[in-house]
Amino acid sequence: MEQPATAPLRVDKLQPKEPRGLVVVITGNGKGKTTSAMGMVLRACGHGLRSCIVQFMKGDLYSGEWDGVKRLGDLVELHATGKGFCGLRGNPYTREEHRANAQAAIALAREKLLSGAFNLIVLDEINNAVKHRLVDLEQVLALLDERPERVHLVLTGRNAPAEVVERADTVSEVNEIKHAYRQQIEPQPGIDY
Amino acid sequence: MEQPATAPLRVDKLQPKEPRGLVVVITGNGKGKTTSAMGMVLRACGHGLRSCIVQFMKGDLYSGEWDGVKRLGDLVELHATGKGFCGLRGNPYTREEHRANAQAAIALAREKLLSGAFNLIVLDEINNAVKHRLVDLEQVLALLDERPERVHLVLTGRNAPAEVVERADTVSEVNEIKHAYRQQIEPQPGIDY
Repeated sequence: MEQPATAPLRVDKLQPKEPRGLVVVITGNGKGKTTSAMGMVLRACGHGLRSCIVQFMKGDLYSGEWDGVKRLGDLVELHATGKGFCGLRGNPYTREEHRANAQAAIALAREKLLSGAFNLIVLDEINNAVKHRLVDLEQVLALLDERPERVHLVLTGRNAPAEVVERADTVSEVNEIKHAYRQQIEPQPGIDY
Repeated sequence: MEQPATAPLRVDKLQPKEPRGLVVVITGNGKGKTTSAMGMVLRACGHGLRSCIVQFMKGDLYSGEWDGVKRLGDLVELHATGKGFCGLRGNPYTREEHRANAQAAIALAREKLLSGAFNLIVLDEINNAVKHRLVDLEQVLALLDERPERVHLVLTGRNAPAEVVERADTVSEVNEIKHAYRQQIEPQPGIDY
């Protein structure tokens, strides 16, 4: 059907007949997993939805999203609960300290998930926390089982466990084709952290 | 949150010795390309950096980021310049109308890139616009050549041209492992739009 060149732009707004929470997994070795979760938080804000981000293994290295989400106001809570990447050279904390942190974080995540106060829960780097046995796979599967059906749950980090992928609705694998740091370019604020 | 009494948490903040703008490409067929770009915008805001988003091929279907970025205040501009996905069934606009829109968008992008007013420019779905010949590859390469060295440029969309990948610093390919829509689940606000 041909339209006149002057056809005015009509903006549609989707509205699902059956609103439901989705389980989304963002895994892989490339840049853009936490970043993608932050984008979902920003998008959710546009719909007036409330988000809670629990960051595992992060907390010892400043990242722009910590202050970025403050600009989104009271629709977003962010908890950077970790002490950095367990096992990464130079990290001064013991495995037991990392595990204690991660265990407190999973309890916090469960509390927020069941609170009724949030539409979207992000468990950032949870896949890594499982891989390093700071959190047990069974604990993550229990959260998936307990998830209220209208709440979205986003899980990020490399090496997503097969059991989590199996239960998710949407799973993306972010693969590194190139990364600036391999060309000895330092991490840059706004892009890398 | 309870912290183990032993080693206190020290928070480091990176500061590159050589600040420089990066060219980042987010391509692939999975969920999380535009989303990832939005996450970079949010992160950049945390550093007080200014971003401009030019969305190609989008504009006829509401997406939460349109209102989400408004909450970030005057650090972000978003221009949804398009009339939807050219060639997608049901889209009522002619190819000429799509191309005219995309040509206005690339001129706008160039103006913003060279304005000195922004630290981060997002060209959302530009790869798709090139694939559909709404924008010429040479126009994109010209923008890469003209990019001021401190300005970050993020290009999203499937089918990133090899010439763009070649010139980028960081390239991620987001692959679909699963997507809710394949299980007949409708797009959900906050996650899918």
